[in-house]
Amino acid sequence: MELITTSIDLSTQGHTDIVDITPQVQQALNDCGMEEGFVQLFALGSTTGISTIEYEPGLVQTDMKVMLEKLAPYNVPYQHNKTWGDNNGASHLRSTLIGTSYAVPFQEGELILGTWQQIIFLDFDTHPRQRKVVLQFFGKKKSDINR
Amino acid sequence: MELITTSIDLSTQGHTDIVDITPQVQQALNDCGMEEGFVQLFALGSTTGISTIEYEPGLVQTDMKVMLEKLAPYNVPYQHNKTWGDNNGASHLRSTLIGTSYAVPFQEGELILGTWQQIIFLDFDTHPRQRKVVLQFFGKKKSDINR
Amino acid sequence: MELITTSIDLSTQGHTDIVDITPQVQQALNDCGMEEGFVQLFALGSTTGISTIEYEPGLVQTDMKVMLEKLAPYNVPYQHNKTWGDNNGASHLRSTLIGTSYAVPFQEGELILGTWQQIIFLDFDTHPRQRKVVLQFFGKKKSDINR
Repeated sequence: MELITTSIDLSTQGHTDIVDITPQVQQALNDCGMEEGFVQLFALGSTTGISTIEYEPGLVQTDMKVMLEKLAPYNVPYQHNKTWGDNNGASHLRSTLIGTSYAVPFQEGELILGTWQQIIFLDFDTHPRQRKVVLQFFGKKKSDINR
Repeated sequence: MELITTSIDLSTQGHTDIVDITPQVQQALNDCGMEEGFVQLFALGSTTGISTIEYEPGLVQTDMKVMLEKLAPYNVPYQHNKTWGDNNGASHLRSTLIGTSYAVPFQEGELILGTWQQIIFLDFDTHPRQRKVVLQFFGKKKSDINR
Repeated sequence: MELITTSIDLSTQGHTDIVDITPQVQQALNDCGMEEGFVQLFALGSTTGISTIEYEPGLVQTDMKVMLEKLAPYNVPYQHNKTWGDNNGASHLRSTLIGTSYAVPFQEGELILGTWQQIIFLDFDTHPRQRKVVLQFFGKKKSDINR
């Protein structure tokens, strides 16, 4: 059994920018050479999120933003904003709601996902950011399985 | 330390059908013979979810559906629906919100849950489906513990 | 690779009491002596939650409570309440929405979190409770890494 910790870096636009990180996660899996196990993802930052979605423009550019704007609207006088002279209270609430931790299984070196299911990083902050997602691969290398 | 990947298959009705999968997960744990560790659950499909709830009819047949209908109503002209001639935009939003990844600990061969806490699979799609949940058991077998 | 199961006990006030458990989780990590891996957290109880937030009074005492009161208000005649003569239907809905399972990575014996990101336990029940969060540390001890 192996454990490999790595990370991916992202440049994001904020305002619920939704990025498909499936290719980077699959590439990192290829690089570490594991066959069977799962990858634990953790997004650094209290205005971020990790989830899955069918990554198509209607959902990621419109429908998700409309729903989240209803649940935690950006332009509301949050206590957080008043206390800190800040403007991202909604970003924090969305992060706690969606969560920053996720795990995805893999077998035969391939992530196991539904046909229309992609892994997404969400940046809820109110301006462009440089972000980091920690990836931890747990599982068996080919040599462990063949033993 | 061991890793065993397996899965369970479910027939669901859609429209936020909520299924108690605790018995199947416990049965799979019994079958793999592990004593201490956790099971990582991952629901395949971008209109599914995994969470926990007190599995009683009031909550699963009424209250959860009413809440989710408020957060992401089914009969709304989503951009997703317009683009793809589809009718399940709400199903996708609910999936991203609830999440498809969950982990539950176990000790002495038994899942550790609260007294009134069950593991649920949620199908948010708008018609009956055949579904798969990947289960990955990580941990120690009895022989490892006795060593 | 090691697996250590432990737990922390909490006294909470209910009504979406939000507790910063980062110090206890870091202390438990120190106690188990692991260097690299992740901690899997699981909150026992169907009216609890685990997530992350910037732990400052504006968000935890006001903004989160206001948002959740909009999503799943406490004083509504839930079917759960009618069936069981109970008053905590909202507590259950919030728990399913936020989730009770979370994982946080660590390296060099330190939890990896964003600068303003803390791990929180949320008690959604309607009265004070004694609670337990299961912690499972998976990873390598110093001796494994130096090998």
